[in-house]
Amino acid sequence: MRSPLVIAVDCSTTAAKAIIVDAKGDLVGTGAQALETRTPAPHWFEQEAPDWWTATDEAVRQALSEIDDRGAVAAICVTHQRETFVCLDVDEKPIRPAILWMDGRADAETRRYGTQRVELLSGKPADITPGLYKLLWLRDHEPDTMARCHRIADVHTYLTHAMTGQWVSSSASVDPLALIDQATGDYSGELLELAGLNRGQFPDLVPTGTSLGPLRPEIAESWGLNGDVVVVAGTGDGQAAGLGLGVTDPGVAYLVLGTAVVIGAEMTSYLPSRAYRSMISAMPGQTTAETFSSSGTYLPTWFRTEFGDPDLGGAPDPRLERDAAALPVGSEGLLTLPYWNGAQTPHWDSQASGITIGWRGCHTKAHMYRSLLEGIAFELRMQLDGLEEARGERVEVLRAMGGGARSVLWTQILADVFGRPLEVCASGEVSALGAAAVALTAIGEFTSIPEAAAAVARTDAVIEPRTDAAGRYAELRALYQRIFTETRDMLHTLHDLGQHHETRGDQR
Amino acid sequence: MRSPLVIAVDCSTTAAKAIIVDAKGDLVGTGAQALETRTPAPHWFEQEAPDWWTATDEAVRQALSEIDDRGAVAAICVTHQRETFVCLDVDEKPIRPAILWMDGRADAETRRYGTQRVELLSGKPADITPGLYKLLWLRDHEPDTMARCHRIADVHTYLTHAMTGQWVSSSASVDPLALIDQATGDYSGELLELAGLNRGQFPDLVPTGTSLGPLRPEIAESWGLNGDVVVVAGTGDGQAAGLGLGVTDPGVAYLVLGTAVVIGAEMTSYLPSRAYRSMISAMPGQTTAETFSSSGTYLPTWFRTEFGDPDLGGAPDPRLERDAAALPVGSEGLLTLPYWNGAQTPHWDSQASGITIGWRGCHTKAHMYRSLLEGIAFELRMQLDGLEEARGERVEVLRAMGGGARSVLWTQILADVFGRPLEVCASGEVSALGAAAVALTAIGEFTSIPEAAAAVARTDAVIEPRTDAAGRYAELRALYQRIFTETRDMLHTLHDLGQHHETRGDQR
Repeated sequence: MRSPLVIAVDCSTTAAKAIIVDAKGDLVGTGAQALETRTPAPHWFEQEAPDWWTATDEAVRQALSEIDDRGAVAAICVTHQRETFVCLDVDEKPIRPAILWMDGRADAETRRYGTQRVELLSGKPADITPGLYKLLWLRDHEPDTMARCHRIADVHTYLTHAMTGQWVSSSASVDPLALIDQATGDYSGELLELAGLNRGQFPDLVPTGTSLGPLRPEIAESWGLNGDVVVVAGTGDGQAAGLGLGVTDPGVAYLVLGTAVVIGAEMTSYLPSRAYRSMISAMPGQTTAETFSSSGTYLPTWFRTEFGDPDLGGAPDPRLERDAAALPVGSEGLLTLPYWNGAQTPHWDSQASGITIGWRGCHTKAHMYRSLLEGIAFELRMQLDGLEEARGERVEVLRAMGGGARSVLWTQILADVFGRPLEVCASGEVSALGAAAVALTAIGEFTSIPEAAAAVARTDAVIEPRTDAAGRYAELRALYQRIFTETRDMLHTLHDLGQHHETRGDQR
Repeated sequence: MRSPLVIAVDCSTTAAKAIIVDAKGDLVGTGAQALETRTPAPHWFEQEAPDWWTATDEAVRQALSEIDDRGAVAAICVTHQRETFVCLDVDEKPIRPAILWMDGRADAETRRYGTQRVELLSGKPADITPGLYKLLWLRDHEPDTMARCHRIADVHTYLTHAMTGQWVSSSASVDPLALIDQATGDYSGELLELAGLNRGQFPDLVPTGTSLGPLRPEIAESWGLNGDVVVVAGTGDGQAAGLGLGVTDPGVAYLVLGTAVVIGAEMTSYLPSRAYRSMISAMPGQTTAETFSSSGTYLPTWFRTEFGDPDLGGAPDPRLERDAAALPVGSEGLLTLPYWNGAQTPHWDSQASGITIGWRGCHTKAHMYRSLLEGIAFELRMQLDGLEEARGERVEVLRAMGGGARSVLWTQILADVFGRPLEVCASGEVSALGAAAVALTAIGEFTSIPEAAAAVARTDAVIEPRTDAAGRYAELRALYQRIFTETRDMLHTLHDLGQHHETRGDQR
């Protein structure tokens, strides 16, 4: 019997990416197709849901074109941008564009409906990202949309429905909508009622790794596959990245250094806390705890775009990295609070903004750049400490992926600030690899998802913390942690002055 | 009888500049010669005192070469960088290089000896600038220098001695050494004793405008002048700038927008306060009150050097100015505390450093630039409010000079933040014009220094405050004034962490 292959799709914010992986966890084919995002108003982000499928279809075709033996493909599994959803009418057609996870239109709804009770049930601190608040926005601002809304589909549900015809989906994938009771793993009647929705509008839920049924024959045929390809229930891209990094036990955490940054770690049960957001894990019965900060590669990219070499257009600048790496730990007294997009874990404060403190005449562009990277690291360490304290268990090592993992400077700063080794996976489609691990387990190539995850995971480098630097950063962190506490009220006043100003019109 | 001419010299930090002015106050000749400053250690700034004379000699020769009638020159008057001094041996030769006003070596002496009593006697808040603290530093660190020190000369004393052979100088010029009792106008025995010095080491004092004697015949001859040219006692460059701007009554203030910024205003008597430093005025019996901030054009120049177009090397950038001018008042919520070189009036805190607060993703390079200019303006307004409150009299209008006065953007921001008209003199050697006014009075062309000052003063533009912008800035100022109060302790901790770090050596 020939060795089977699986297709894994990561339908992310920017593109649908497909990989084909063999039973040893090695990559044999890849494809990608960009997705268009529209911003019809400031802070609004929308996509056309049918694009999710056409981009996935194209990415899979590209990946398949790279392999010889299409008949060996046994399963397909999807991971995806989380929280994003589309409203479908009775004919299963989109009523309006899909609303993305990073869409900020529901800020007022977040404040109004994000009660302690809602946080406790959903396991998610009130924030713009969970789907619930955007569904409440739609209820209040687009009643016609909601009156016609027959079904609501996250990206996973939309794609697996396209591939199976079934309205059955993964609990872990649907969970970011914040309509599932973390304590039961099923939809919360109370949360559905709050949003004016009913269970029939949502897919039935199964655990990650469950078969959702065979791939539709017409799709299998058009891709040149056998008729017995299984569509396997996946998980969101954060948790999938954890699997792709082999993070399956509580002693290891995953660190996503993307536009936003996430620290994720497994827990054996749901333990409510504002120190993280709780997600249904890809591993049955477990909870994934994630911290979240919107200032990831966003911030160094912003800096390079606004202050860097104009010819590079915001791309990484080796000279800037080198200059910043040559500076002492602590950027010679320049500290940054990285709240350019407000504060998330654990403060959840959309009125917060960024601060640079300690400016001296000796400071250069490289000082500010290094200080931004250090500020994000301090923030992440604070989040890691909070996560550990809340769950009562230490993280011994972190595994990092995403664009930021390619910065030698930043990963060293992170290892020093964490005071722990950082295992770096700087290349490849890590989230898609995690989905591949799920598919390989579903077809019986591995006895468990952790075993499969260990097989697919790759480490490019291990960055050890440096004792002297870690000690110096510990001193600076004590001060860093005071900054927000002692400036919060001023930041709120500054925010209010801006709001007040906007209502009065522009005055030069 | 032909109309007389006067020579005025401004021996500043960067150059000796000479102008020749006629009896109507019009400029008829100019010359300049650069001065070299050395920095033998960080924050140390030194010059060779003999360079003051050779540069002055060269600048005067250049100016004289532009006029036809050298025989009409009737007087010469010097203004100069203040606080700077040189120690001379018994042969009147320098024992060591002169120590400049901005030299920071005496920070510890400032804290140790800068008591309330010393501040009260000298009229000057404890700061690195007054000569006293550097003289104390020399006593403690270079006892050999002080053992051989026969005379101590500020720039005015050094130059007028070179021109007259007399050790007689202007009280207003010597006063920045902080050895004169503001209440009596004579040397303070108590301050001399503190520094371990005696009256015989210093020149006799006369009021500004007094004749110090004839110009030495060999100099007059070498310059091609008559034998009856009078050397007139001048004043420091700040007060001279006030005269050059026609600022002689308490309702008007001068605003020096140089590397550092100064607001100066006249008072009819000495009134001790930390809201300003008190200087012996160029006008007999009066006191000049000055606020001081080291963040003047220093800060936008730093920004353009570090963050601006590299081809411009820190020079003003019309595109940056235009982009910043196009932004709304308040830089869309970005506020700057401009303490890059510590805080001066009224906080006098060398451990303070700068802060940028309110960073959002919408901010650009132009936002930071505008925010720096606004921050300096907020600081100056706070200083102006403090000065007015302490002396109990309002400033109705400010007259601005210096490099910063050439920025249309900055002068508008200043007028808006002050809520008062700003009369701008953006060109010419304003301090030297003030010295010319003194000389013209001394030779009887005017009956008083104020009358002469009014004759030489020129205004290029009057910037009116805009009502809407002034209102918006008033809102932001209320928040600005909280920043230092609420972050002072963190800034001190940050400073201490840096000091601690330095003693442990560099750790990358």
